[in-house]
Amino acid sequence: MKKNVGIVEPKIFNLPDGLKLESGKTLPSVALVYETYGKLNKDKSNAVLVMHAFTGDAHAAGYHKGEESAGWWDFMIGPGRALDTEKYFVICINVIGGCKGSTGPSSINPQTGKPYALEFPEVTLGDMVNAQAKLIDHLGIDKVYATLGGSMGGMLALEWAAVYPERIECVIPIAATLKHSPQQIAFNEVGRQAIMADPDWNGGDYYGKALPEHGLAVARMLGHITYMSNVSMEKKFSRRVKEDSDEFKFAPDFEVEGYLQYRGQNFVKRFDANSYLYITKAMDFFDLSGEKLFAKGSLGRTRFLVIAFKSDWLYPSCQSQDMVRQLKMHYVDATYCEIDSAYGHDSFLIESEGAQQAHLIRHFLTKRS
Amino acid sequence: MKKNVGIVEPKIFNLPDGLKLESGKTLPSVALVYETYGKLNKDKSNAVLVMHAFTGDAHAAGYHKGEESAGWWDFMIGPGRALDTEKYFVICINVIGGCKGSTGPSSINPQTGKPYALEFPEVTLGDMVNAQAKLIDHLGIDKVYATLGGSMGGMLALEWAAVYPERIECVIPIAATLKHSPQQIAFNEVGRQAIMADPDWNGGDYYGKALPEHGLAVARMLGHITYMSNVSMEKKFSRRVKEDSDEFKFAPDFEVEGYLQYRGQNFVKRFDANSYLYITKAMDFFDLSGEKLFAKGSLGRTRFLVIAFKSDWLYPSCQSQDMVRQLKMHYVDATYCEIDSAYGHDSFLIESEGAQQAHLIRHFLTKRS
Repeated sequence: MKKNVGIVEPKIFNLPDGLKLESGKTLPSVALVYETYGKLNKDKSNAVLVMHAFTGDAHAAGYHKGEESAGWWDFMIGPGRALDTEKYFVICINVIGGCKGSTGPSSINPQTGKPYALEFPEVTLGDMVNAQAKLIDHLGIDKVYATLGGSMGGMLALEWAAVYPERIECVIPIAATLKHSPQQIAFNEVGRQAIMADPDWNGGDYYGKALPEHGLAVARMLGHITYMSNVSMEKKFSRRVKEDSDEFKFAPDFEVEGYLQYRGQNFVKRFDANSYLYITKAMDFFDLSGEKLFAKGSLGRTRFLVIAFKSDWLYPSCQSQDMVRQLKMHYVDATYCEIDSAYGHDSFLIESEGAQQAHLIRHFLTKRS
Repeated sequence: MKKNVGIVEPKIFNLPDGLKLESGKTLPSVALVYETYGKLNKDKSNAVLVMHAFTGDAHAAGYHKGEESAGWWDFMIGPGRALDTEKYFVICINVIGGCKGSTGPSSINPQTGKPYALEFPEVTLGDMVNAQAKLIDHLGIDKVYATLGGSMGGMLALEWAAVYPERIECVIPIAATLKHSPQQIAFNEVGRQAIMADPDWNGGDYYGKALPEHGLAVARMLGHITYMSNVSMEKKFSRRVKEDSDEFKFAPDFEVEGYLQYRGQNFVKRFDANSYLYITKAMDFFDLSGEKLFAKGSLGRTRFLVIAFKSDWLYPSCQSQDMVRQLKMHYVDATYCEIDSAYGHDSFLIESEGAQQAHLIRHFLTKRS
């Protein structure tokens, strides 16, 4: 029977010696928030590392006590589900640079006693993965059975394979890429400029003051357009006009406008503007193209399942196809699956669209090499 | 020989009785800025009405005295060019609601002696066309040989046919649509929100004060992404890093970021933020789908050439195909041409990409019905 994992509790891990970053700088104090579902088996060979997307968090499955909405990938994780917690020990760790519990620009800088803000050093997807590896070490896991995730989560899954090729058996990048195209960079840059154009951003120094809510909301509205598809927007909104449209001349008239404003305004309650800047920059600089995915070691013993969605125009399927081409040219065991979903980039998060994805992943993981 | 039209001068026409708007309101005083190229023939049958895109203006061809850059469609207009000024009397009129000389929100409200700002009434594409028709009347032209334009210009060309079906012989909508999809509305709404999020926008009341430059620049940056294609961005920028990148942590690192900032900052010098709001709203409300294109009269004597660009994802070719389908279902003479350009929505403005467009239009206009 397919069940939910029930009530879960986030845990915190403090890296004992801080983290040396790829830039050469050191983050002296690093906390990671993470959740686990299922049990680590005796030979510690059943760990599955789920990586969250850009604005996601460690709460991938189950319910926090007293909360009504489940984790962001709940339909994928649980007893009998694709990531079967009766077989796998599923781990999800919040990235550094974010604002969901792990150390980021809104954390207290131990040297000043105040939030880092822009004093926070630039971090890379490599740094995020290196921090996670310390926790995996701490859990006594030598080899991770699988890393997987969608969007930035997929890029992190690839980064794990690139940096620790001998520690990963399976990699499942979903709606991801080996590097951002200039268009993907451009969309991120407009988001960043919207945030920094807000006077309340104040050079990043806004903690305890007015937040750059307007700029962050605009950035998120744009993000939402790119996460959906033309078709899914047509289905969801068409050109329907709002019933309760405001008197104000430039208030939202169409439902799609009202929806985007609502999503933008909601987002500012749950996400930190500086984290938006740091993480999008990290994604833009991420680049495993050419030989870089294979630089630290052969992936000859690693299996890849690369999943793309037909209607995803932000991370178009040609990027996943290019990934598979690179892997094949290096004699890596790689399978490509393009799912015919209409929901655009967000498809991997949507249960109704995720049925095929769940099926593919379940079977891919079951076939132990 | 294909030549430029040389030095040109904009003209002004003041509507004698103001303009009754579709909303029922009246604009008491309306000025239209326009340019003409070539000569009106004796029977006044050779007028070609070129319509500009969203942020365009009446200066479609030739040079203003002392200026070095030619009009925005110069490669299309001139002796021997596609819109051959030895055959046609080409007219381009700036739309009302804009900020390029015709009456808009930055114009002086005769009732207050101050700029209208948000006191300016909402205008529609129908209003823009009705204002133009007054000028066409004034020029003594009963029947316009052709209306054409790209993007909003194409939508205005369609609106002309819808409102004055008996006055148009040929219509050439380029990279246009019968109505905006929710995605197109959504992109416009993010631009509007970026402008209104700028405190200097000040409820639209910023004339003579600090302008909402940051918000308007963000809106334009987003616009530019949607006007280009993935492929053209890849060709133009790839992932090249700027040579002169600033020390500042979130300064543009990639060339594409620097380019967008440059375009955004340039735009604020030449466009009014309130016009951005009014005109995008007019486009979003434009809707000639279903029977609406044919409501005022048969188009049985009008010929259509519908042009789309393969890489245009903002006004995707399926919208043009839908237009042709509607026309064919009403027994209208309509030809569809999809041009295989890589430059996205902006293709119609680019000379190198415009060669096919010029060729198609030249021949379509030559074949008099």
